[in-house]
Amino acid sequence: MMKTLHKQKNAGTGQSISASPLPFFKEINQEGTTKLLTDLSEKTGKQFPRLTNTGVDPAQFNGNIENFIGISQVPTGVVGPLGVHGTAANGTYYVPLATTEGALVASYHRGARACLLAGGITSICLQEAVQRSPVFKFENLSDLSLFVSWFLAEKQSFQPIIDSISRFAKLIESKIQIEGNHLTICFEYYTADAAGQNMVTICTDAICRFMIDQCPIKPSHWFIEGNSSGDKKATAHSFHHVRGKKVTAEIELSGAIVSEVLKTTSELMDRYWRTSTMGVIQSGAIGAQGHYANGLAALFLATGQDVACVAEASVGITRMEANKDGSLYASVTLPNLIVGTIGGGTNLPTQRECLALMDCLGEGMSIKYAEIAAALVLSGELSIAAALSAGQFTQAHQKLGRKKSI
Amino acid sequence: MMKTLHKQKNAGTGQSISASPLPFFKEINQEGTTKLLTDLSEKTGKQFPRLTNTGVDPAQFNGNIENFIGISQVPTGVVGPLGVHGTAANGTYYVPLATTEGALVASYHRGARACLLAGGITSICLQEAVQRSPVFKFENLSDLSLFVSWFLAEKQSFQPIIDSISRFAKLIESKIQIEGNHLTICFEYYTADAAGQNMVTICTDAICRFMIDQCPIKPSHWFIEGNSSGDKKATAHSFHHVRGKKVTAEIELSGAIVSEVLKTTSELMDRYWRTSTMGVIQSGAIGAQGHYANGLAALFLATGQDVACVAEASVGITRMEANKDGSLYASVTLPNLIVGTIGGGTNLPTQRECLALMDCLGEGMSIKYAEIAAALVLSGELSIAAALSAGQFTQAHQKLGRKKSI
Amino acid sequence: MMKTLHKQKNAGTGQSISASPLPFFKEINQEGTTKLLTDLSEKTGKQFPRLTNTGVDPAQFNGNIENFIGISQVPTGVVGPLGVHGTAANGTYYVPLATTEGALVASYHRGARACLLAGGITSICLQEAVQRSPVFKFENLSDLSLFVSWFLAEKQSFQPIIDSISRFAKLIESKIQIEGNHLTICFEYYTADAAGQNMVTICTDAICRFMIDQCPIKPSHWFIEGNSSGDKKATAHSFHHVRGKKVTAEIELSGAIVSEVLKTTSELMDRYWRTSTMGVIQSGAIGAQGHYANGLAALFLATGQDVACVAEASVGITRMEANKDGSLYASVTLPNLIVGTIGGGTNLPTQRECLALMDCLGEGMSIKYAEIAAALVLSGELSIAAALSAGQFTQAHQKLGRKKSI
Amino acid sequence: MMKTLHKQKNAGTGQSISASPLPFFKEINQEGTTKLLTDLSEKTGKQFPRLTNTGVDPAQFNGNIENFIGISQVPTGVVGPLGVHGTAANGTYYVPLATTEGALVASYHRGARACLLAGGITSICLQEAVQRSPVFKFENLSDLSLFVSWFLAEKQSFQPIIDSISRFAKLIESKIQIEGNHLTICFEYYTADAAGQNMVTICTDAICRFMIDQCPIKPSHWFIEGNSSGDKKATAHSFHHVRGKKVTAEIELSGAIVSEVLKTTSELMDRYWRTSTMGVIQSGAIGAQGHYANGLAALFLATGQDVACVAEASVGITRMEANKDGSLYASVTLPNLIVGTIGGGTNLPTQRECLALMDCLGEGMSIKYAEIAAALVLSGELSIAAALSAGQFTQAHQKLGRKKSI
Repeated sequence: MMKTLHKQKNAGTGQSISASPLPFFKEINQEGTTKLLTDLSEKTGKQFPRLTNTGVDPAQFNGNIENFIGISQVPTGVVGPLGVHGTAANGTYYVPLATTEGALVASYHRGARACLLAGGITSICLQEAVQRSPVFKFENLSDLSLFVSWFLAEKQSFQPIIDSISRFAKLIESKIQIEGNHLTICFEYYTADAAGQNMVTICTDAICRFMIDQCPIKPSHWFIEGNSSGDKKATAHSFHHVRGKKVTAEIELSGAIVSEVLKTTSELMDRYWRTSTMGVIQSGAIGAQGHYANGLAALFLATGQDVACVAEASVGITRMEANKDGSLYASVTLPNLIVGTIGGGTNLPTQRECLALMDCLGEGMSIKYAEIAAALVLSGELSIAAALSAGQFTQAHQKLGRKKSI
Repeated sequence: MMKTLHKQKNAGTGQSISASPLPFFKEINQEGTTKLLTDLSEKTGKQFPRLTNTGVDPAQFNGNIENFIGISQVPTGVVGPLGVHGTAANGTYYVPLATTEGALVASYHRGARACLLAGGITSICLQEAVQRSPVFKFENLSDLSLFVSWFLAEKQSFQPIIDSISRFAKLIESKIQIEGNHLTICFEYYTADAAGQNMVTICTDAICRFMIDQCPIKPSHWFIEGNSSGDKKATAHSFHHVRGKKVTAEIELSGAIVSEVLKTTSELMDRYWRTSTMGVIQSGAIGAQGHYANGLAALFLATGQDVACVAEASVGITRMEANKDGSLYASVTLPNLIVGTIGGGTNLPTQRECLALMDCLGEGMSIKYAEIAAALVLSGELSIAAALSAGQFTQAHQKLGRKKSI
Repeated sequence: MMKTLHKQKNAGTGQSISASPLPFFKEINQEGTTKLLTDLSEKTGKQFPRLTNTGVDPAQFNGNIENFIGISQVPTGVVGPLGVHGTAANGTYYVPLATTEGALVASYHRGARACLLAGGITSICLQEAVQRSPVFKFENLSDLSLFVSWFLAEKQSFQPIIDSISRFAKLIESKIQIEGNHLTICFEYYTADAAGQNMVTICTDAICRFMIDQCPIKPSHWFIEGNSSGDKKATAHSFHHVRGKKVTAEIELSGAIVSEVLKTTSELMDRYWRTSTMGVIQSGAIGAQGHYANGLAALFLATGQDVACVAEASVGITRMEANKDGSLYASVTLPNLIVGTIGGGTNLPTQRECLALMDCLGEGMSIKYAEIAAALVLSGELSIAAALSAGQFTQAHQKLGRKKSI
Repeated sequence: MMKTLHKQKNAGTGQSISASPLPFFKEINQEGTTKLLTDLSEKTGKQFPRLTNTGVDPAQFNGNIENFIGISQVPTGVVGPLGVHGTAANGTYYVPLATTEGALVASYHRGARACLLAGGITSICLQEAVQRSPVFKFENLSDLSLFVSWFLAEKQSFQPIIDSISRFAKLIESKIQIEGNHLTICFEYYTADAAGQNMVTICTDAICRFMIDQCPIKPSHWFIEGNSSGDKKATAHSFHHVRGKKVTAEIELSGAIVSEVLKTTSELMDRYWRTSTMGVIQSGAIGAQGHYANGLAALFLATGQDVACVAEASVGITRMEANKDGSLYASVTLPNLIVGTIGGGTNLPTQRECLALMDCLGEGMSIKYAEIAAALVLSGELSIAAALSAGQFTQAHQKLGRKKSI
């Protein structure tokens, strides 16, 4: 199972490996990029003609990347239109998906088509909040309780601190969690149309510094994030609560649509759903869904979201139920859609165009974006469950996937 | 909390929304792409100059995308070199990261530098397996048990079926799971240097068809995947077991390196680790780690991996311990690195170059790739924990991040 | 692995097994008990001299049991005194533990002794709430949203309904959770000194009937409990939030006490804690603790609590940290202590005496009880971690356990 | 939320509380018990007439309890007979339940009656194993890998060590888990008819001492249990795998039985199951079930099992499905039934009689016991789901429960 390793003799001494680090260039400039590429070519003997053939001015990526060497290219397809009835999304939307996985776009497109024929998906953003959770460690519970008393009396005075920093951030709530002499305060913010992780960090940092400065009882240590906010990871708490946008979407498909577009029956879909829900429970997943990650990763990538947030966004619950009249009810609930339409990568060249294609570029668009995203995810759940229920899954991958050397 | 919706009157009738679906083009060709882009421009009034300015022949993306409209561009930086002592990786490696999140490359680069100075990271691939888990439903437990008896007697005869389909796939094990009259068989494969999800689907489908054909007892239904294999989701079972490659990596940093490169102390790192582990347990995460998703999403994107697998790959355990001599022990364990160096998006233009930069392109490279990936992740865990332990986290994002409109 | 079963031929027909059910006696009376015991002896050939030798008037068990046949006897030991500094518990308490597991009382007694020598345990009840979570299913999200709007406007009017039913119950909060067309409302109550599961059921039922009656939009179905309240099961949500009482307890033990009473060192305890926390994370537990269930099951049994609630009460977080001066900090946090000092089994003969022994019988005592329970649990965590850290664990079970036929 | 505490000034000094510990009596004897009771009465002013009115010779509890002061009495009812078709259980069984929760016995009895009328429950023990999981910490991964190599070559030689200790224990498997420089070895045993936790501790301790003695590479530390075996806690791993006995049970009830005995319909049961499964997923439970803990706690208590194991035994999956002919399929799967019919409390006076009532006393009976237990649990799941589906739940508790002061 495991090959024996020679002992890592010189750990910590720096002698076993003589290489020196690459230079580091925070700002993008031609000189730095050339220096990096020359170094890399010398050291690896490789050339990077495609990566460096960007056709764009690299300077526009400043602030989004360091040690810039080029541009990765990901093929992008389109699905839709998605018909969406929401609180902000209302109408038909074309959705760009960037992926290298054959059959993915085709599958989501099929689901979207079935839902469009059925009159569109109801998709509602239920709740919004982004968290930052500093943790304070005290000598003992007595000190902690004095600090908490001070905090509870003072917590109404934090919004002005935030206002002095951010035009957008609003403190929704600050909830305490005590574990022995550890106090975690979960600060929950409304971050408008930004995904908001940096915004909440900076605001929370200011509040914490104010508290440390003002409160007569000082913690022995504190950290701006105690790793309980669910940042970049699937957690049971974020799944139950909200992180970013919480959206639910539903559709009712007639028996005819299920049969003609999805090539299966409502009864088979219901049966597959029931069986697969038992399976996902056995696997110890958080929530119960099929492949949210596929659609979300491709959408996030095309539209300048933080792709690492797929880790937390890809949880939720999918439900399917056959009705007596042969129709099918299906819904998805995504509590952790941490997305934005300003900030992050949303303003970069292709990303802007993809957001614009969805009519979601800029301020006032993030709820619409989230509602479309949930509708997309529902389309994908329907399509994969149809394929699996009717035995089409394997064939779809054989036909549409790249001829892989298997 | 929730705005009242007008009733979705015409659900299922197709009347409420009159739009027609986009045409669908499985193969990439100029005509199809032009048709799609024209349609989209007409319907949305938008233009897509950057997305379509690909500078490459789109035909090479055939099999990786459908309904192709262009190419998404993601800025890419480099970190390293990472010093790695593994079973397949041995030496120094330059790692490309594609991301739009400012400060990410800088943070991983800093961690890599500290580890290089310390003599390099020990990183070992411990185990490999990719699963496909069909589920069979029987009339009752008696039928199920007869089927199981037949299966147990027959299971040695499946490898020849696989051999007739795939040059690479080897059946490692097939484990049964019974829940009432549901039987799940988890087929575990060695998939060589491919990530392997399609390979295991096709092989398992063939085995299932053989079983259904040959076994005198027939299930009332069966599905090629019962949603228990952990595909595209974080699960407690995959975390405990393996999905793709299971890798652990460790480093010992001297007190001097912790202080000079990471700008903190081993004691603070230890304290932060302890406190944050309590936090992540409280959040109900699977495993206990900081931000594996950041490094993995950027690496997967640059190197043609299935980015949706960030959902499952971003689980594991990070551990940090201060030693009495002031040095710091740190390790990461990633049980679900589902990665490949052939197939999928690995052969596309920029992706090939990025794999080549890591010296990981092609056959015989996937274990090396996984060991470098784990080393990268360890670098990132060290860097973020250092920043959080010493109060640098907020400032790093303020300095390096794009001036966001907060 | 599995023996083949003969087919269960007559399932559903009643013919395969000809036995008739036992008679059913809701009320306890001599005639009924005699009838049951006679039947059982006839059918099984067994006698029950000890079970029926109750020495008490069975009538006092009316309302706590049906189909009464006798009394189970469980040997009971005492530990303590526990020194407790809490919000309600303050002083020294003797704690009765009913168990059949040798070494359990000894282990908790040792931990209690160490903590008493250290000046007593700080134990604080942080929060109280008992939940009942009815679920309402609607035609679609539009109907659901109209119902929610009505509910949000009306929710302040529920307390009078409750007041007409219960002297004690106070509605703390009612939180909605939406999943497609499913609406769950989690009603959280303060239940004074009763564990309160029945109280919250009856109150919630009344509120639900009022809502169904009054709201112009009706659900297509509703159920008084949608299985999300955490009743009788460990859940990530109850662990993060509260169910019953949430209590945290801490102690600081000098190096001398650790050495003399616990026969180990603070450093070893710290190291064991760190290592075992990694282990429990790997196992996919909810929270991270050692053996809360041992102390709680024995305490619940002796004092008339609902022993089935061990399922939910036995989650939490234990933390241990060596200080530089050789002392040891330790804490436990139990968010799901669903306990009472009135109602349930608290008024039965031996149970009353055991509650009285703890000075916790009757009204106004439940918070004190919870604080003592947490202190007990902390004693047990210290004792087992000491044994495991110093290699005493196996021997303790060999010496103190019944000479088991191994 | 939290009252401010006065500072716990004298923690660690022993001065704040002046009480002295109770004396400790490992062996039960009249003198010791009298001494304890006298002390307790003096200190608390309470008397314990019922607790001490045991009517039995306390000496028979030696080895099951320390610091003995008396006997707790729990009222006990009977349900059944349960009709069971299993691999070891075959026929009709009367099941004793010790509880103080009104309505519990009635509910399980109703479920048992429905299943008896339907021809009995199929209940099959699928697998058996009890784990002990020592953890070994090494300097680094290199040392760890050398130890693993030695272990893998040597693992076939452990059974003789076990044979010299135990007549019953058989080592099924020993699986390694690596996390950085931590090596956990999960030893899995067959423990015959004992629950076996002590047996596996003693055997594993002997194997570990052999390994430490013989292997040229020594760990820097090791602990006999790294808290990953699932002992006394619900874990995702034990749920997926097995701990103790793994049993599944199923029944098919005709529409007439559902209607006449359970007072509901199969369709309502199906609907409730579906809805409640969504609820329990939202709560973040391990598995998906209703109230296994109720039946198991009462059964374990009556029959001398370790009641603390309710924490781990109360996980599993319940499934219910309406068939087109109006009948209902239902199943339960319990992977963690850690039970025995010898050892522990099984030989105590009332416990013996209760095991004998089930025809499960002594050697060769544990699989039968587990199959009956699963059938009991299925009866309880059916009864509670029937009550909840048809709106009887609240009334049942109002009618059968003790008139509680609500």
